[in-house]
Amino acid sequence: MRTMKYEHSSLRKIAQDFQGLDQMMKMLPVLKKMPIIDVSEALSLTETKELFVILREFPLEHQAEIFAAFPLVKQLSVFQQLSMKRFARLFEQMPSEDRADLFQILTQQEQIDLLPFLTKQVRENVLALSSYPEDTAGGIMSTDFATVGKDMTCFEAIHKVRQDAPSKKTIYYIYVVNEDQTLLGFITLKDLIIAEPHQLVEEELHRDFVFGYVDEDNEEVAAKIDKYELVALPILNRKKQLVGIVTHDDALDIIQAEHTEDMQKFMGVMGSSEDADYEQTSVFNHFKKRVFWLVTLAIVGLVSGLIIHNFEGALAQMVILAIYMPMVADAGGNAGSQSATVVVRAIALGQITVKSWMLVLWKEMKIGLMLALCLGVLAFSKVVLLSWETESPEVFSLWIIGGVIAVALFLQVIFSTVIGAALPLLVKKMGADPAVVASPAIRTIVNILGLLIYFGLAAYIFDLH
Amino acid sequence: MRTMKYEHSSLRKIAQDFQGLDQMMKMLPVLKKMPIIDVSEALSLTETKELFVILREFPLEHQAEIFAAFPLVKQLSVFQQLSMKRFARLFEQMPSEDRADLFQILTQQEQIDLLPFLTKQVRENVLALSSYPEDTAGGIMSTDFATVGKDMTCFEAIHKVRQDAPSKKTIYYIYVVNEDQTLLGFITLKDLIIAEPHQLVEEELHRDFVFGYVDEDNEEVAAKIDKYELVALPILNRKKQLVGIVTHDDALDIIQAEHTEDMQKFMGVMGSSEDADYEQTSVFNHFKKRVFWLVTLAIVGLVSGLIIHNFEGALAQMVILAIYMPMVADAGGNAGSQSATVVVRAIALGQITVKSWMLVLWKEMKIGLMLALCLGVLAFSKVVLLSWETESPEVFSLWIIGGVIAVALFLQVIFSTVIGAALPLLVKKMGADPAVVASPAIRTIVNILGLLIYFGLAAYIFDLH
Repeated sequence: MRTMKYEHSSLRKIAQDFQGLDQMMKMLPVLKKMPIIDVSEALSLTETKELFVILREFPLEHQAEIFAAFPLVKQLSVFQQLSMKRFARLFEQMPSEDRADLFQILTQQEQIDLLPFLTKQVRENVLALSSYPEDTAGGIMSTDFATVGKDMTCFEAIHKVRQDAPSKKTIYYIYVVNEDQTLLGFITLKDLIIAEPHQLVEEELHRDFVFGYVDEDNEEVAAKIDKYELVALPILNRKKQLVGIVTHDDALDIIQAEHTEDMQKFMGVMGSSEDADYEQTSVFNHFKKRVFWLVTLAIVGLVSGLIIHNFEGALAQMVILAIYMPMVADAGGNAGSQSATVVVRAIALGQITVKSWMLVLWKEMKIGLMLALCLGVLAFSKVVLLSWETESPEVFSLWIIGGVIAVALFLQVIFSTVIGAALPLLVKKMGADPAVVASPAIRTIVNILGLLIYFGLAAYIFDLH
Repeated sequence: MRTMKYEHSSLRKIAQDFQGLDQMMKMLPVLKKMPIIDVSEALSLTETKELFVILREFPLEHQAEIFAAFPLVKQLSVFQQLSMKRFARLFEQMPSEDRADLFQILTQQEQIDLLPFLTKQVRENVLALSSYPEDTAGGIMSTDFATVGKDMTCFEAIHKVRQDAPSKKTIYYIYVVNEDQTLLGFITLKDLIIAEPHQLVEEELHRDFVFGYVDEDNEEVAAKIDKYELVALPILNRKKQLVGIVTHDDALDIIQAEHTEDMQKFMGVMGSSEDADYEQTSVFNHFKKRVFWLVTLAIVGLVSGLIIHNFEGALAQMVILAIYMPMVADAGGNAGSQSATVVVRAIALGQITVKSWMLVLWKEMKIGLMLALCLGVLAFSKVVLLSWETESPEVFSLWIIGGVIAVALFLQVIFSTVIGAALPLLVKKMGADPAVVASPAIRTIVNILGLLIYFGLAAYIFDLH
């Protein structure tokens, strides 16, 4: 009796070997022992016709699970190649939330064609679930949950759960509802097992529970599952009736998508969690997601242009200023981006709040001071090292010029570090997402400041105009 | 019979109201109905003495859970203020993984003082768990799991689980082991409930299971829980003996920490998941995490300095070139950072692989072309608009100068977009984490390229030297 156990890397290899029907049929025994997700991954590249030869070897319930784990595009192409009748059989067995996701991307005509082949129960379920917007709890919830009444004994409850269970995705929490589906509380399967059989469900009932509303933002719902370490969160409509559950794996998906969104937002790429797949997004859509920020930044850059333009005379008199202008701007931009990154993430994880802004800025000022010292010394050495043969007005030695540039950079790094930390806090205070303070935007702002410091200081010391 | 239900925002308010012992005692009935996590949050600011007056009102098991949910610093301060005997009672009731985490941050003397007060079983458990490094599966796993033998009937198994369950954190998966603790497979609580009581556990046994090794990287383990949508993952030692479980909520914590690390890495902040808390990190540690990149970038910036230095003559002849130099550099830096962000995230989510690099770069080139067109037109307008009164050598009209600058920027944006996408793919190909291609690094690289294009083109067209 050999037991098979899987490791990540070996699985990938098995999956890659699945080329050609013959070979696949030979691998069937292995395939049948693999987790559903891996079977799905291994089969996702197979042609629809061959796919069904293999799928037939699995029980219908597993067929539907394997199919549901395909990417939506693959699901759609299978749908378009099967007869409605045959497809409906598979469709009905799919997990409710995956079913609704697929239904939502069908054309109206395809939806109309499919609906008559579904049982009344599935039809109503699909129509209800696909009516919720993608980014709400309703858009991701499942209707596969178990319920019992509060007046049942634990023995009766176990009996009901046993009967219902094969069709329910998650029965670790069993929800207790009254006649009109109002949620009264929950019991865990663990409670049921531990309780004496004759005890009433009511005695074990947890009446104080965390829940989400069906129209609530899905990120809120994921945050609750995260914070309270739940396996599943019940979802209620505004009448407090239980309409679905969101499970821990959905929460993880949402948090992953949120992170993509945050990172892109922060780097000045627009986009939402739904259209995140790189390959499926068209060139023009990629372009659209990036052009807004690039153009905005270029327009804001006009201000820098005006400042430099204003000091054109100074530049003409001391070309050496032009040479080190980018160095000062970049050092500020880098330092500001760093502090913004750290603060944005700390806010997202709830490590700091807007209330403690004084402490944060004070801390950043001290950090900025230390960074500025290092970079200032470096800048001074750079000027002296690189420009020892540069022509400059004779009245000022290279040491003085290097000193002025280093001091400007020193000030720029301190200010940039503090500004990089202050902006996300300010945006948060105004009730928006701190990640919108994109790193390129901070760079543009501190560049403007940097130019003012740089030219202001130089003009003052060297008496330029 | 009033049922209390919680929403995120109202909870925060309740928590803020907890000031002073009297008030807190008055709120006790509310507190007792709140989820443990919220109680812990509400009490985390209370002094140790008052804390224990309130804690005493909860059953010992809940006391330990509330305590375990405190930040480690708070746990440590409570530890230092209680007698060893009293603390040991609380400590023994804590979830095993939290217990080990606290134990690990005690001084050696404190550990020696505490150990004699613990039962043999707890002492051995704590010592075993705290011997694993923080970043391995062993460092985060829990030893609270339920096991049964394969020769038991389902009825017997339920009976054993019922007896064991109150002390086990998660019993949704029940692990089936033989005499020497070798893991044979698992059954779910759901399976047990659904099966006929006289059936043997062996008949229901899932022999093909996903697992992790105790010395495996914790990010690998979290990835498995994510991919296979597990509530818990069994952790084995190299002899295939079951030594612990990692649960879905641990996986979520690891993935969150990983996000922080990725984002910081990408923005040129060094750090690991463990030292991520903003407020608890000292100014000097914050400084250390940022200075390396800033200094490195400043040193690489020497190359830009040398290039500009080399074209000093050209700058002196045409000051207008100095004015638009930063605009070209910035546009490239922004475009390159954007494409790098998109590609790094797409790699992380498995949407693209190194194999498809040709497709990705071809796509990015097309996107870059569109962006370059927009920004080029903008740059041309900017030059003509801002510099209509700038002095320039009479032989070249402002239109020609604007044209040259715009073409340089056009080329710079296309190249930067492609380079931003190519670098993460290259780093991934070399087997490293694509996120190390930090955005500031890309900026520095494309700046150098941009200066070469800019001055090269200008020197060629305007015959500068």
